[in-house]
Formats: sequence, structure tokens, C-alpha cells
Amino acid sequence: MKRSIAKELTPHKAGQEVLLSGWVRKVRIVGGDLAFLILADGSGSAQIVLDGGLLDKIPPVESAITVSGVAQESRSREYPVELLADQLEVIAVADPLPFPLNHKVLEPGLDLLDRYRPLALRHPNMQTTFRLQHALIQHFEEFFTGEGFTRVTTPKILSTGTEGGAELFKVDYFGQTAYLAQSPQFFKQMLVGAGFERVFEVGQVFRAEEHRTSRHLNEFISLDIEMGFVSDVNELMTLEETFLNSLLEALAPRFGAKMVIKGAQKPMPRMALSDALAVLEKKHGKQSRDGNIDPEGERLISAWAEREYGVPAVFLHSYPTDIRPFYALAQDDDPGLTHSFDLIFRGQEITSGGLRIHNVAQLSQALAKRRLNPETYEFYLQVFRYGMPPHGGFAIGAERLTALLLGLNNIREASILPIF
Amino acid sequence: MKRSIAKELTPHKAGQEVLLSGWVRKVRIVGGDLAFLILADGSGSAQIVLDGGLLDKIPPVESAITVSGVAQESRSREYPVELLADQLEVIAVADPLPFPLNHKVLEPGLDLLDRYRPLALRHPNMQTTFRLQHALIQHFEEFFTGEGFTRVTTPKILSTGTEGGAELFKVDYFGQTAYLAQSPQFFKQMLVGAGFERVFEVGQVFRAEEHRTSRHLNEFISLDIEMGFVSDVNELMTLEETFLNSLLEALAPRFGAKMVIKGAQKPMPRMALSDALAVLEKKHGKQSRDGNIDPEGERLISAWAEREYGVPAVFLHSYPTDIRPFYALAQDDDPGLTHSFDLIFRGQEITSGGLRIHNVAQLSQALAKRRLNPETYEFYLQVFRYGMPPHGGFAIGAERLTALLLGLNNIREASILPIF
Repeated sequence: MKRSIAKELTPHKAGQEVLLSGWVRKVRIVGGDLAFLILADGSGSAQIVLDGGLLDKIPPVESAITVSGVAQESRSREYPVELLADQLEVIAVADPLPFPLNHKVLEPGLDLLDRYRPLALRHPNMQTTFRLQHALIQHFEEFFTGEGFTRVTTPKILSTGTEGGAELFKVDYFGQTAYLAQSPQFFKQMLVGAGFERVFEVGQVFRAEEHRTSRHLNEFISLDIEMGFVSDVNELMTLEETFLNSLLEALAPRFGAKMVIKGAQKPMPRMALSDALAVLEKKHGKQSRDGNIDPEGERLISAWAEREYGVPAVFLHSYPTDIRPFYALAQDDDPGLTHSFDLIFRGQEITSGGLRIHNVAQLSQALAKRRLNPETYEFYLQVFRYGMPPHGGFAIGAERLTALLLGLNNIREASILPIF
Repeated sequence: MKRSIAKELTPHKAGQEVLLSGWVRKVRIVGGDLAFLILADGSGSAQIVLDGGLLDKIPPVESAITVSGVAQESRSREYPVELLADQLEVIAVADPLPFPLNHKVLEPGLDLLDRYRPLALRHPNMQTTFRLQHALIQHFEEFFTGEGFTRVTTPKILSTGTEGGAELFKVDYFGQTAYLAQSPQFFKQMLVGAGFERVFEVGQVFRAEEHRTSRHLNEFISLDIEMGFVSDVNELMTLEETFLNSLLEALAPRFGAKMVIKGAQKPMPRMALSDALAVLEKKHGKQSRDGNIDPEGERLISAWAEREYGVPAVFLHSYPTDIRPFYALAQDDDPGLTHSFDLIFRGQEITSGGLRIHNVAQLSQALAKRRLNPETYEFYLQVFRYGMPPHGGFAIGAERLTALLLGLNNIREASILPIF
């Protein structure tokens, strides 16, 4: 008999022979000769009714089994159609579990969940997290493909540590020191100049930050875009806002109940960083020591935006030149500020973006000002000599956005295998 | 005026004011006071007609410009609608080019093309290659999403060199030696057991093969799938064949003329490796020294399949146990052979796949037989103790498939930035 999957057990199957395979999630014995078994598979779960000699065959929870029988309507609200089993085959018996998987939430601490990560992932909440992440990435790809962007894949082993020292992992590349990419920044700009004009990348990037926090990972998925012939940073913010709204709309039918998306589709306010710092000082007596906003400031300004504008997101723009990378484009009327922005979403920065310098002489000056060696950057500068258009882009951290959409406390909950 | 893109210059635009931005690909001066300029942008190219004082403003080829004027019908077959310019603004002037980009093919050797890679990518043939690669990867994702697979992203920095020694890049992980992933093999299996049941990954993998060949890269894009509750290797081959046929069908309308796909939609023959070796010996007097097929053998057997079956693809299966990894599932009736396969497509292997051992005792034995330390593999073995279903999968190299579809001679032509 051809295998069915749990989610196919709908009323029109009633009366038909059905075969299911999956994991024994839960068993409830009623009166000694009847059992209700919840079977989980990759599509969801189904209720199986067993009686007679089949009861003795039920293996420990989380064992893999195949059951067959006739589908019938049931009185259960959760499972309106159930399977009355006439055969049960045990495929693989599970050892006793280190923690229960059939409770509503996963109760052990993160350490135990890390130690048994693949097993913990079987919990429905974890399954939801990564199915949402799948849908999120797929929507990103479809949205930007629809906007004329080309998907690219840029090198992750770099011969030069052009992105700055301390946070780079070193690789032994046939006896020479190479580095793991922290971001596709230079490459995506080069590919705009290489004639693709609009590119996106879904790729892993690497940050050697030893002190793990609940907000950072050593490897994460960066959703990057970069586009040419753009000269107003508002175009980039509008594009990101349009993307995020279309994302929430696409996710809502499947995940709406799990996400807190209140107000997210209202216009997202845009304010200069200096104005945000002034609000923090005025409302919270909070002083910035370095002219930048810190994690506490991000939480406060986000809560402020939610109170003032009814949307849990705020674009901060016009960051000072000296706290942005050398390639950030300075504003004509105030060279101390850049055409750049961060998006704060539900209390955390999820995006950095902005316009970049496209004039090669200006870019060389910007390198010199930071005492960076132009020879090291020659691979990057080259295409700027062949008609580089004005351009800009941004990047979104996929795990962080996943965690914020679902209200997860720790970003590691949004990284499928964070500890290998 | 809002910018249009080249491909929007269709007959219904005739008579309208249009503004285009892009690169000056070609200039033809006619009679001294009229010029035809081909402008390339991310969407394609357009013909611009300039006269009078505008001729003096035309910058060197590959410079970035913006032109505006009125769209009009033309007598050109390639550009039925052209732009009669009344304004031209130079955005960024290009230096003299190291090689022409407006010839039908790129003439310089690979070394020069590598040295000026971003510039070379502007050539229409290169653009086609990576737009096809985009479409290929997107089709892979859509096809397997439609088949109930979940997109996953697995770690690329590994604490143990479980995949074997010589071909691994070493990473300095906070003072400890770690390794770059050669494949997501163990992780994708673990995620099948983690309840996702069917997973796919589009990810970069790393191979420290020092001697570059025209068939290998140090980093490449691996299109991986793995699925649970499968116990017949034919199911995997059928799934891959269905995917490839649907891919060719999806690519044909956009790229058909560039691809040689003759016969590719006929059934792909499946034969045991030993039978393939026998054919090679009988038809070509070719002996295998190690019981495996070599690159020349792949070319010959592929050509043979094309002659015999009219399709440029052949599945070879039943590889000997000792030339497959320890996790390959042995055949019940002949433990010297595995339930595994390679797909040879247009003369080269593009896929390795097969069923895996799912019984934890059998897997421990397989490790012991290869003298591998089970403690090193504990991260992998763990989930096998909790009801691991029978499973299998395969991987396709995206660059190699791109190169074979387009008939490129060197796989580096199918890697967008292969040399950084």
C-alpha cells in the first residue's frame, strides 16, 4: 500500500485503507484494551486507535513505526479523522528519552536541549521555528527575484582579511593564511558593477565573536541585497519595508497565530540616529557615550516607536561617518554623516544598509583616511574603474528575524544546529 | 522621470518619454552626425539613437550613463523599439578595457578573464550562465518544497574532522583546530531523524583539493536532499530523474537555445556499476584497476547510453561497499555491494546518492570496520538511538550541472567569483 502522510487524513479519506509512517509521540491507554496513539511525521500528526493484540506491540515513545488500517471519523476536535489500525510494524525502537517531547513546551534548559539537539528538534514548537525560517527565506528569494534581482553565491574563503581583524576566523589555505567571510559586502557590490545590477544572496557568514550572547551566533544566515542606479537611501528603506510587509502577509496564513505581528503593517517611522538619541536622553535620561545606540537603546527606541506610531519597527538613518565602514557614502551637505540606516525591529537591529561610495577616487580617499592599504583592496576597487553606478543595499540576519517573529528569547533557538 | 529598464522597451512604449540607465556596450557612428548606442542594464539591452551635440557627450564603452528621450519603432530586428535620445548624462567613465566586451564571445584566455572577473561577467554569455544558475537553484528549491521538504542550513565549521583527512580545510576556532564542512551529509541525516523527515539544503561546501582541474572547485554549491521512510534506492533515482526533467522543462523557455538538451527527457537507464565496467571492457577494451569508474569511463559510458537509449544520462548503481562511505547501506543479498548510485550526465558524475544505514548497531559496526572512533561520531550516532527511520538522499553540484547544461569547458566558468 502506498504511504500517506498525516496531514492527508482528511474527511474524504474516511472509509479508506491508509498506511502511515512516523514517530510515536504519545500513547493513552483507555480501560486496558484500547489505546489512542499520536503519530508524528514530517507533515504533522495523526491519531491512531489500536485495540486487541496490537496494544502489546506499541513501542516506547519516539520509536519509528508503520501502521495501516481504515480511516474513520472521530469525536476528537484536534483529529476529526483517525486511523483504526489493523497492523503495526515497529521500524526502530527508541531509547528512553532524556526529556519529554509530548509536553506543550520543551521544559529542559538550553544546555540539555543543545546536548540532545536533534531530538529536541522533534518538538512541534521547534518544527514550527524552522518551517517558518524556510518560508521566510523562500519568500525573500521570491520577492527579490520578482524585483529583478539575480541570486548569487560569493566566496567564503578569502585570501585577505579586508573586513577587519578581530572577528575573522583564520583558515589554513594550502599553507597560507586565509579568512572566512564575515559578509558578502564587497562581492555583492562588485557583482552590481559586473552587470547584474541587482543581486541577492542567501548565504552563511562567519563571525569570530568568542563571547556568545543571546543575540549573536558564530555562523549565521545573511540575507543580502545590493542594487545599482540608486541614489536615494529612502528607496532602500522603502524596498525593505515593502519586503517585510509582504513577508508578514505571506507568513500569516500559516504562522499567524504563533507570531506577534500587531501593527507591523503600518508605515515604519524613519528618524535620524541623532534624533533617536535625543529621544532616549529626554524620555529615559540615557546618554550615548560613543554617538551610537546600544542594545538597551534599541529596545527603548523600538518601544517608543510602538507607542508613538503603533508599529514595532523604526528605521534609524544618518549614522556618523566614523562609526560606519569606509565604503559608506557621506552626505553632500554634511560629510560627517552617511546615507545609511539600521532597522530596529521589536527591540533589536535586524538590518544594516545604505548607499556606498561609487566614485573610485573618493573610495581611495576613504581607504587612505582609515589608513587601509589600497593594494589589499585592489580586487574590490578594480570594477569601480569601469563605470561603477551609484548603488546601495542591506542585509538581514535570518536567525534574528526568525527569533523576533516568534518571540524566542535566544537566537540559538532559531539556528537549527548551533553547536557543532 | 521614473527609470525604465531595457526589456520594458516594447512596442507599447512607442511615442512615450523614457529614461534608461546602464552601461555603454557598443557605439556605431553613422555619417558623422548620427550614432547608434547599445545600452546594457541588468535586464538586457536597448538601442539608443543620438544625433547633434549629444554625439560629443558619448563616453568610452562600459561607462555608466543615463539617457532619456522618446521611444520609437525602429527597423532593427534585434531592437524593434529604440530610444531617440534628447539627454545623456555620464554617471561614471570607464577606463580603457583590457579586452572587448561587445564581441560575440569573450576571446581572452581564462587567466585574463580571472584577473578581470567582474568586468568579464558583464559579457552576455557570462550573464546567461549565472541567470541560468539562479533559475536552476530556484527550481531545485521550489520542486523539493513542493515535495514536502524543509529547507535547512547546517553548520560549516565543524569541531571534528569526521569526513576524512586530506581534503579538509583547517580553521582556527578560538585556538582549537576545527574543519570546514565537505558536505552536509551527517547533518542532513540527523535532521531527517530530527522529525523534519524530508530536508534539502542549498549551501557552500569546501574541498581542499590542491590540484585544480577543469572539473573541481575548492568551494562549491551543493544541492542536497535527504528523506526518511524510504527503503528502495529506485525511489531516490526516480525522484532525481523527475526533478531533472522538470528542471529542463522549466529552463527551456528562457534558456533552451543555449542548452543542448536533446533527448534528456527520455527515461534515464539504470545499470549496475559492474555492468557498466563490463560494457567499457567489451566496447573499449578498458580495464578498471580499482573496481570503480574513472573520468574517461564516465565519458565513454555516457556516450554509450546516448547511443543506446538516446538520453545523455545514466544511473550507475550497486557500488562496492569498500569504495563507498561507511554509512552506505549494504545490500541484503550481497553485503559487498551497496544501495547507492551515481548519476552520470553528459559525461560527468553530477550526483552521488543512496540509502544509508539506519540501525544504530549496524552503524557502529560499520565504523569499527573502518577503524573509526565511535566517540568522534557520537554527535551523529545519538539520534539513531531514538527511532531513526530508513532513509537516503543525494547531492548535486550546482556549478557542474550549470556547466554541463551550457556546454562550458571549465567548471570555473560556472562559479561566479572563483578566485578570491
